[in-house]
Amino acid sequence: MSADAPISRFPVPKLSEMPEDLRARIALVQEKAGFVPNIFLALAHRPDEFRAFMAYHDALMDRPGGLTKAEREMIVVATSAANQCHYCVIAHGAILRIRAKNPVIADQIAVNYRKADITPRQRAMLDFAMKVSQAANEVSEADFAEIAGHGFSDDDIWDIAAIAAFFALSNRLANVTAMRPNDEFYMMGRLPK
Amino acid sequence: MSADAPISRFPVPKLSEMPEDLRARIALVQEKAGFVPNIFLALAHRPDEFRAFMAYHDALMDRPGGLTKAEREMIVVATSAANQCHYCVIAHGAILRIRAKNPVIADQIAVNYRKADITPRQRAMLDFAMKVSQAANEVSEADFAEIAGHGFSDDDIWDIAAIAAFFALSNRLANVTAMRPNDEFYMMGRLPK
Amino acid sequence: MSADAPISRFPVPKLSEMPEDLRARIALVQEKAGFVPNIFLALAHRPDEFRAFMAYHDALMDRPGGLTKAEREMIVVATSAANQCHYCVIAHGAILRIRAKNPVIADQIAVNYRKADITPRQRAMLDFAMKVSQAANEVSEADFAEIAGHGFSDDDIWDIAAIAAFFALSNRLANVTAMRPNDEFYMMGRLPK
Amino acid sequence: MSADAPISRFPVPKLSEMPEDLRARIALVQEKAGFVPNIFLALAHRPDEFRAFMAYHDALMDRPGGLTKAEREMIVVATSAANQCHYCVIAHGAILRIRAKNPVIADQIAVNYRKADITPRQRAMLDFAMKVSQAANEVSEADFAEIAGHGFSDDDIWDIAAIAAFFALSNRLANVTAMRPNDEFYMMGRLPK
Amino acid sequence: MSADAPISRFPVPKLSEMPEDLRARIALVQEKAGFVPNIFLALAHRPDEFRAFMAYHDALMDRPGGLTKAEREMIVVATSAANQCHYCVIAHGAILRIRAKNPVIADQIAVNYRKADITPRQRAMLDFAMKVSQAANEVSEADFAEIAGHGFSDDDIWDIAAIAAFFALSNRLANVTAMRPNDEFYMMGRLPK
Amino acid sequence: MSADAPISRFPVPKLSEMPEDLRARIALVQEKAGFVPNIFLALAHRPDEFRAFMAYHDALMDRPGGLTKAEREMIVVATSAANQCHYCVIAHGAILRIRAKNPVIADQIAVNYRKADITPRQRAMLDFAMKVSQAANEVSEADFAEIAGHGFSDDDIWDIAAIAAFFALSNRLANVTAMRPNDEFYMMGRLPK
Repeated sequence: MSADAPISRFPVPKLSEMPEDLRARIALVQEKAGFVPNIFLALAHRPDEFRAFMAYHDALMDRPGGLTKAEREMIVVATSAANQCHYCVIAHGAILRIRAKNPVIADQIAVNYRKADITPRQRAMLDFAMKVSQAANEVSEADFAEIAGHGFSDDDIWDIAAIAAFFALSNRLANVTAMRPNDEFYMMGRLPK
Repeated sequence: MSADAPISRFPVPKLSEMPEDLRARIALVQEKAGFVPNIFLALAHRPDEFRAFMAYHDALMDRPGGLTKAEREMIVVATSAANQCHYCVIAHGAILRIRAKNPVIADQIAVNYRKADITPRQRAMLDFAMKVSQAANEVSEADFAEIAGHGFSDDDIWDIAAIAAFFALSNRLANVTAMRPNDEFYMMGRLPK
Repeated sequence: MSADAPISRFPVPKLSEMPEDLRARIALVQEKAGFVPNIFLALAHRPDEFRAFMAYHDALMDRPGGLTKAEREMIVVATSAANQCHYCVIAHGAILRIRAKNPVIADQIAVNYRKADITPRQRAMLDFAMKVSQAANEVSEADFAEIAGHGFSDDDIWDIAAIAAFFALSNRLANVTAMRPNDEFYMMGRLPK
Repeated sequence: MSADAPISRFPVPKLSEMPEDLRARIALVQEKAGFVPNIFLALAHRPDEFRAFMAYHDALMDRPGGLTKAEREMIVVATSAANQCHYCVIAHGAILRIRAKNPVIADQIAVNYRKADITPRQRAMLDFAMKVSQAANEVSEADFAEIAGHGFSDDDIWDIAAIAAFFALSNRLANVTAMRPNDEFYMMGRLPK
Repeated sequence: MSADAPISRFPVPKLSEMPEDLRARIALVQEKAGFVPNIFLALAHRPDEFRAFMAYHDALMDRPGGLTKAEREMIVVATSAANQCHYCVIAHGAILRIRAKNPVIADQIAVNYRKADITPRQRAMLDFAMKVSQAANEVSEADFAEIAGHGFSDDDIWDIAAIAAFFALSNRLANVTAMRPNDEFYMMGRLPK
Repeated sequence: MSADAPISRFPVPKLSEMPEDLRARIALVQEKAGFVPNIFLALAHRPDEFRAFMAYHDALMDRPGGLTKAEREMIVVATSAANQCHYCVIAHGAILRIRAKNPVIADQIAVNYRKADITPRQRAMLDFAMKVSQAANEVSEADFAEIAGHGFSDDDIWDIAAIAAFFALSNRLANVTAMRPNDEFYMMGRLPK
């Protein structure tokens, strides 16, 4: 339905024009997902930034620790919705549905995470992430005490904050480039396998 | 005066405990600046994130293009002031004074960039950067037309947006970690050489 | 998955306890939709308000005029997303997908209507609706001139404003009652018939 | 002084052109108040919406329950002032003065309800109503506990919320139509009978 | 009705305890108004501040120039309403009614100056005053050009800005001290002489 | 570097054209500071307002009481930074450095007072001052209790509030007049004597 719509307001290089390492990375994600998420193509306009972005993303999202992969995606979806970022809400909403094996959780968190079907611990995680995302200048020791009270370690808290901070960057890039989510994302994880 | 104040709310590794490449990078900046900016120590808590952060920073701030190095720092100071980030305003204020060879410009931009002694082109650059920083969801083609009218190329505009976006990340990390600017920064660039 | 979750924070009457006209109305919607949307059950707690609410809803949404039914739902989804209303975004998102025969439009509008695949005329419609929803006190003749310039008649403009105003009411009721969208809505209109 | 000023930005039908039931309703209010409040004329432009609006209004404002009629009007005045609605603040300010037999209470609540001469229970009622009016997406169980602590039943709380929600609709309609309050309202209830 | 309510949260000196010049000033206003406006009593707690406040007030409000006395009061009422200041809206609302010989203008401006029965020139005056009051950091040459286009001289513009700025001070003092408007103000200027 | 930049958007009288008392006051400050702070020249455009402004300033800033002179300047810097006022942040930042004998405190407070090297008592003082500056309409008895709990007397609290209120005025005047801080202020108090 939207085959001709541009995926970025800025130039998008052809695969054949990209540096070898970018092509390898893209081949990898394509093999895994079955398609190439547009963010890989849009950011390839700037190979050095592409590499740093992906390295940062993987360092935060694939890291072992006290947060599940689904919880990391919850942070992405909640903060990206607050920043009204098409690409991030729709693409990471899909990933969240798959990670959480829950077809409705992403829409719930995107609209209003306060009313989503999540645990009190996850609610505290998202409250902290949202404060980092929207008012980091006001984060105080009271906020740390509150979230630590839900069993998060200092390492977990760094993860929560860093993911919220990284998507503050990502949301702005996607909004300025008018980055378009692939059509595939809308349905991913909505039907039982 | 503040020798004992912690430089981060999170653990800070000793140099001897850091991976070799981090130590090399820190040795380099120390040789150049005469001291180790605290951000290198604070982020070393997470080596993978340190590497991605520095790679991203350098890709944006050292890149050739239509923006001078001073102008890139103007974007950092203006957006970091809006986000009330101690480390970024004070450290990058120092760098801006040096890059611009102007002892007052950083304070002017930090307090209210609309009243700073800058050119109309620089004002347009900061207006765009501030919109990316504070309301990227509302960036529209009218904003692109406005800034392009001041002679910025699409590549320059990407730079402006990407710097504003990267410091959206950086400001949040610094605020959450309560990252402390080194005392050296306060006076840098204020006196004629 | 959520069969036991309450559909309202307030008491929900059994069908058998409801006045006859409410039961008739509910039977009608059930026949048409295949299930009873929770708003009918939640509002039945107050029969007089139920009747006024439904009468108002139908007067605005089923009225002939210059706006298509899909366009009316676009207004609902955009303003309800701004008000972070679970029930309205998810239920009316489903209706919008069906009315527009477009599986992605509702998610696009909910996240950021400025980036959705809509016509300039629809964009002007949503800009006006959002101003009524979020800052009606600032609506001015300049706003009327802008939207009239896109071919909307005064009657259309009343419709746009009245729908935005009615869902200002509806969003608040749904948020206060923690009204739960039926699970059925999440998938409606996402797959081709 | 303002006999010629339009009472709505949209067409206002003559009494003789209105459906019989609207005329009857208007005759009733005229007999009671001594004049026809402009909202009846302005909304008569759309008879079906007029009927639903009035039915909803009466269901909420004339309902028996734990809130006095004066308290219901306090909610209207406080939330309508926050929404900067001429018609609602001035017309319902008049009704509040009469219901409360207090010539100054409406002005006090309109300017800043936090400083008005009201009871702590009424203050809690208005705090809750204002949250529904201005940030219903953030209403939480803590808010319910707070207001319940002042002796309000769940039924009272629904009333408070529904009145705030209904006037969210009403304020937007009045602002968009530039609905003009009748001159009579300004003095009503200011002098002892 | 409110004879016993305190007029300030802070101590209020007796007339007999005040310095002679304060007593003289108060005697003057009492003779003119028929009562002592509470602000004179509340501020007498600090005689030096009282003197500076009154001198500043008179320098701005009694100054000859291009603004009428009624227009000066319009600025006070509009900005004080935005700051939700009981004393200033109610006391200066009374003065505005008298100066403008208009019983409804103060209520109109207090609720929403954009909908008040004022001239386009007065609307421009209030738009500028409100920007000074609420976002002086964003006042630009475009704002000066706009208001100058309505025939205001630079001297008039200083007056508008200075009145808005002075009541930024006054509103904050009155709100912090919970300064109570005299009951007399509510009815002043509402009835024809 | 900026010898030719105008110090005000409005006319600035020559010293020889000023009333004798203004000249005397200016001579005094020049003798003390070694230069004439621009605010004295900019406000001399309006001698009566100049006199009231200076009288008010001195009444608040030179008054004996529980706040040190440095603490008074902290209030000025924090609130003026929130209002983005060039003149006030830069000039009073200089005075704060001198009063506090601390070369970094002003920059810390200007960027984010929550992260500055101040005592908990000073933090409470600035929290209260900021609420007066930014949301005086919401100041409540809970705020008074909080600050009193840090040992501030009612007289101290009046001082804090009045300074925040006075600079609400001052910041707006300086922003509207585009008042330029003297170059001398930028370096004052940054080097050990």
